[in-house]
Amino acid sequence: MTMRAAVMRGDRFVVEDRPMPTPGPGNVLARVRACGICGSDLHYFHHAPQIIAQARDLGADTGAMERTLREGPVLGHEFVCEIVDFGPETQRSLPVGARVTSMPFVVRDGAPVLVGSTPEVPGAYAEYMELTEALLLPVPETVPDEAAALVEPFGIAVHAANKAELRGDEVCVVIGCGPIGLAITAVLRERGFSDVLASDLSPRRRELAATLGATAVVDPAAESILALASAAAGGRPVIVFENTGAPGMLHRIVLEAPTGSRVVVTGIAAGEERLLPMVAITKELQLQFVIYYTAEEFAEALRLIAEDRVAWRPLLTGEVGLSDVTQAFADLSDPERHAKILVRPWAT
Amino acid sequence: MTMRAAVMRGDRFVVEDRPMPTPGPGNVLARVRACGICGSDLHYFHHAPQIIAQARDLGADTGAMERTLREGPVLGHEFVCEIVDFGPETQRSLPVGARVTSMPFVVRDGAPVLVGSTPEVPGAYAEYMELTEALLLPVPETVPDEAAALVEPFGIAVHAANKAELRGDEVCVVIGCGPIGLAITAVLRERGFSDVLASDLSPRRRELAATLGATAVVDPAAESILALASAAAGGRPVIVFENTGAPGMLHRIVLEAPTGSRVVVTGIAAGEERLLPMVAITKELQLQFVIYYTAEEFAEALRLIAEDRVAWRPLLTGEVGLSDVTQAFADLSDPERHAKILVRPWAT
Repeated sequence: MTMRAAVMRGDRFVVEDRPMPTPGPGNVLARVRACGICGSDLHYFHHAPQIIAQARDLGADTGAMERTLREGPVLGHEFVCEIVDFGPETQRSLPVGARVTSMPFVVRDGAPVLVGSTPEVPGAYAEYMELTEALLLPVPETVPDEAAALVEPFGIAVHAANKAELRGDEVCVVIGCGPIGLAITAVLRERGFSDVLASDLSPRRRELAATLGATAVVDPAAESILALASAAAGGRPVIVFENTGAPGMLHRIVLEAPTGSRVVVTGIAAGEERLLPMVAITKELQLQFVIYYTAEEFAEALRLIAEDRVAWRPLLTGEVGLSDVTQAFADLSDPERHAKILVRPWAT
Repeated sequence: MTMRAAVMRGDRFVVEDRPMPTPGPGNVLARVRACGICGSDLHYFHHAPQIIAQARDLGADTGAMERTLREGPVLGHEFVCEIVDFGPETQRSLPVGARVTSMPFVVRDGAPVLVGSTPEVPGAYAEYMELTEALLLPVPETVPDEAAALVEPFGIAVHAANKAELRGDEVCVVIGCGPIGLAITAVLRERGFSDVLASDLSPRRRELAATLGATAVVDPAAESILALASAAAGGRPVIVFENTGAPGMLHRIVLEAPTGSRVVVTGIAAGEERLLPMVAITKELQLQFVIYYTAEEFAEALRLIAEDRVAWRPLLTGEVGLSDVTQAFADLSDPERHAKILVRPWAT
């Protein structure tokens, strides 16, 4: 049995036949209904050899990464699926046909494996995938597929907000309004913050940020969002969410952030960054690097969406079938046109 | 009226006559009994022009820094004094002759000015200094001058431990056993931590760390303290105190620290450091840069010393008069010989 998958081959995605996953103990076979294209997928698509080289430089065993790249990665980890079949040792508390989402990990031999990171656990740019039953969250009837596919980025936003250990009176600064920055903006507004300042070079992204709940939007080419935040703070703490991963951005934040600021870093920067510890010490800055979420945070993200407590629809700017994934990746480079594109593996 | 002071002149300290301070409103005239030589004084002595150049590069107004360097800085901010006279608008709740210490700030026109940072507020490498009455802490009879002069570095240690927001079960790693690292070691032990691992290239400093409460000491030339800490952790969080300011140290910590580590940075590094955000993100590291203390933390440091709850005597390795400050600064470059040298301005 085979299925179709969009396989990354160098600078494009090729629709190929791949073996149908056979769910292992505790796992299920799931039919993919939709999957968002993540910024980290874009990053990997454009920089996979450099990412592997850097990991090798750092002494990591890059065997699995190299093999995956050679055999053709199947990415995609922001998915909504429906259950098709159950593997051995499953509870089967959800019925066949149930719509589900899940953190993008599959348990193999007792250990979680990141979906899409190895040939053995391909991702959701495919017709089917293996998922771990214990991690499944049923998607409520009222939540459409396109919203369920956004649970993952909203999970990251919930996690980032939690890691910030907010008291409630902070001036919040969101740097970079890609899907993560936008989701953070929505989560901060949902938590009642009265000052959520967002910046992005793209006018369209700033517009989206305002729609999702930013109280002010800033063009970083015209003014410093951190200077504005300092002025607005009046002694209140400033919390910065850096979501760009742009070279030099951390350095600039260290220079411009007011004393006592905390910086939550979600932006994936591949290379080496500059840091001036003397400045960071003088201001007692805190840099908190974050990735992923807990199971509770992932479930909270689904709840926020299901209970209509965060705006999510403006994030969605396109949909493609498997054969147009290459075009979607290209289109996502224009922030004026797109924020989040969904892959619908069964679309014709 | 003049007094003698050890004035920094290029690569040496020269004993010169300086005007006696005239205490302003709310301030007192104090006779300096002893003052510790701080690592930041050493850093300034060796790098003042670079520090000013860097501040200028960052857009700071360096006028006061340049004028101070030109007129001859009087450093010294780890002092114990006795009250000699009162300026206008003082409460005089402590008597003349009372031994006191204070955070190294003097209030001028309602704003705190760092002691020793301007010609107007010279530091304690001098016979007399101006202090702010509201900041004075009386030194108990039982606390000798040499202990009271250590309140300032212990205040930094208390602050660093507080900023670490410790739960109590962490594996503590102390990198660099200068006076700050040693004081942090003593404070962590006082707080009951069962794993306080300390590293320093100097055998003498490692010996001091063990004396002050380290549960294990590590020669970083022979083994990785972070690998040891990871092994000891068994799932407990690891907290790292970086006190060296050595070039490349933050980068190494980011590479070697286990997932979820928090790093408290007290070490003053003058230059630009390397940072690999991708590694920090993958491990969800936190970098908390710290400086100084609150008034409560400074008072707690005095209490810890007065109540004999931290070992402090092993830190003290020498005393000099004003005319030997140059030699003391040279001697402090050898960690095998010295940790903390006190200046006694009235010693003959």
